[in-house]
Amino acid sequence: MIPGPLAGPAAERIGLKHGAGGRAMRRLVEELFLPLGEPGPVDGVGLAAMDDGAALRVGDQWLIVTTDSHVVQPPFFPGGDIGRLSISGTVNDLAMMGCTEPLGLTCAVIVEEGFPRADLARIRDSMAAACAEAGVTVVTGDTKVMGKGELDGIALNTAGFGLTRRVVRDDGLRPGDRILVTGTVGDHGLAVLTRRRDLRIEGALSSDVAPLNGLVRAALAAGGDAVVAMKDPTRGGLASVLHEFAEKAKVGVLLDGPSVPVNAETAAAAEILGIDPLVVANEGKAVIGVRPEAVDRVLAALRGHPLGRRAAVVGTAIAERPGDVILDTGLGRRLLAEVEGEPLPRIC
Amino acid sequence: MIPGPLAGPAAERIGLKHGAGGRAMRRLVEELFLPLGEPGPVDGVGLAAMDDGAALRVGDQWLIVTTDSHVVQPPFFPGGDIGRLSISGTVNDLAMMGCTEPLGLTCAVIVEEGFPRADLARIRDSMAAACAEAGVTVVTGDTKVMGKGELDGIALNTAGFGLTRRVVRDDGLRPGDRILVTGTVGDHGLAVLTRRRDLRIEGALSSDVAPLNGLVRAALAAGGDAVVAMKDPTRGGLASVLHEFAEKAKVGVLLDGPSVPVNAETAAAAEILGIDPLVVANEGKAVIGVRPEAVDRVLAALRGHPLGRRAAVVGTAIAERPGDVILDTGLGRRLLAEVEGEPLPRIC
Repeated sequence: MIPGPLAGPAAERIGLKHGAGGRAMRRLVEELFLPLGEPGPVDGVGLAAMDDGAALRVGDQWLIVTTDSHVVQPPFFPGGDIGRLSISGTVNDLAMMGCTEPLGLTCAVIVEEGFPRADLARIRDSMAAACAEAGVTVVTGDTKVMGKGELDGIALNTAGFGLTRRVVRDDGLRPGDRILVTGTVGDHGLAVLTRRRDLRIEGALSSDVAPLNGLVRAALAAGGDAVVAMKDPTRGGLASVLHEFAEKAKVGVLLDGPSVPVNAETAAAAEILGIDPLVVANEGKAVIGVRPEAVDRVLAALRGHPLGRRAAVVGTAIAERPGDVILDTGLGRRLLAEVEGEPLPRIC
Repeated sequence: MIPGPLAGPAAERIGLKHGAGGRAMRRLVEELFLPLGEPGPVDGVGLAAMDDGAALRVGDQWLIVTTDSHVVQPPFFPGGDIGRLSISGTVNDLAMMGCTEPLGLTCAVIVEEGFPRADLARIRDSMAAACAEAGVTVVTGDTKVMGKGELDGIALNTAGFGLTRRVVRDDGLRPGDRILVTGTVGDHGLAVLTRRRDLRIEGALSSDVAPLNGLVRAALAAGGDAVVAMKDPTRGGLASVLHEFAEKAKVGVLLDGPSVPVNAETAAAAEILGIDPLVVANEGKAVIGVRPEAVDRVLAALRGHPLGRRAAVVGTAIAERPGDVILDTGLGRRLLAEVEGEPLPRIC
């Protein structure tokens, strides 16, 4: 049941790519951690599904559970901070499974000796504000302190749980379905990176970090069962989500490049840094697969919400090339390769 | 609602004591994190209760939720490792609230770049073994990598959740109730510390880390509603738990020192290091408050379980001196002061 340690020099030590949300991380999780999920839930979604979270039957509902640790560097960045990130990330993972009204969150803080209390208070205030936006409460927590030099600042874990009558998976696409993104891509990763490198970009480049449960609730109210796949494009960005959608549903995905919304400041920063916004982390966006007959009303619902004004239809599931993502650049078509991992370490 | 940052030089930075499970940590949590718990659950146990976890109404049952991050140093120690610790710690927190059959656990790993994959595999195997012992499964997870030098090795977060018909709190004592401990105290903390300092102690000094849900199930089956308080004596040890019991229930606690079981090796190490085993972390013990009429059958049930062979009645709740813990040493009585924090950093 449990595979032994991997042999071979290349496999002997953990690298940054193993936390970067791409192929390398997926392989590590599959090889190292899937055995912990055996036996999986008899009735539900467990670790093996590699979804945003787990789903377990409780009476006539599903209990959705998710967890995320956050180690973003720097902890304060344009548009947000590690506190807002951790609340939003967990609320969003629950929402992506169909749970838009969480029962509660847990919060475990690991902090370095010498960390300023004022910064901790600022992070708490930001968490409290994000909780209020999402209509959620922290119900239990844990605090650990590591010695000076043993941790670079702060690491926050947030787990979340809640009930839903319908679970939305990430494997539900079939040919003809349309794929929507709820707004501009690449903002979070590029905002953090420009702050880290102290780059000067014209205009206000800002993270999109936000709790999306209200936006997702609007989409589900409009689309109902015609919403067949959801995922938030965090590490690895939109490209990674489309690859997961394609692989899990065994469809091809045709991405219409020119219709993917990108902020001008984000595009400028991406150009300077030579990074494709399609592979950069977002923290306030969802990618939603919808049956064709419901596209218009889901799009209208998204655009009617403050966090979805720039929502757009960006792709289509096709029968050809199952598992692949094909990018139509407007000038021609090419395969969009899956990245080995997010190009930016400690982005979330 | 949200207090501002604390002023004053002594309060400006986080110290090791703020993660050490004693008074300093409780004050930090109260001042900094309780606002995240507002508004608390309308019907249930939230952050403000400072219990082992939270309890929320779901239909005619209670959903118990708990979280713990583990940063023990070294990650491998006599009798266990960080993997066994994280599974056991979370299973035990659930058990202390009355939930002995968890629905599942979440597991979030933060690992330092360069961490040996073989060590990660060893930790996973240990987690899998502890899961099997407890009859529990990891249902979802998360992986982050920090750069070389940004984290000292590995940090593991485990959250747990499950249902129970009856919640056992830690504030249920009344005068006349008896207090049991399920075995020897101080083993975990002193095993880790002697390994860290490379002390040579005669005999096998070993951590007690173990999942206790089976043992607690036996105690609850024997004692039923007469089991009125439970807590696992981790950071801050037995002394800390007794202080919490006394304060929350507004009773005095009379501790009969000579009846507290201590392993000879642990006592020897404690003596050499000048540390009182009463304030040292355990990871496979429970402290249980029981109505007097049920003491004998709960004690018999504990002793009939492999993890409870050395269970003992160690104290009594009294009407006098509410909030205080009085130690009867066998030679006389004195107040047992609450420690500011566990004397050993990164013990769990």
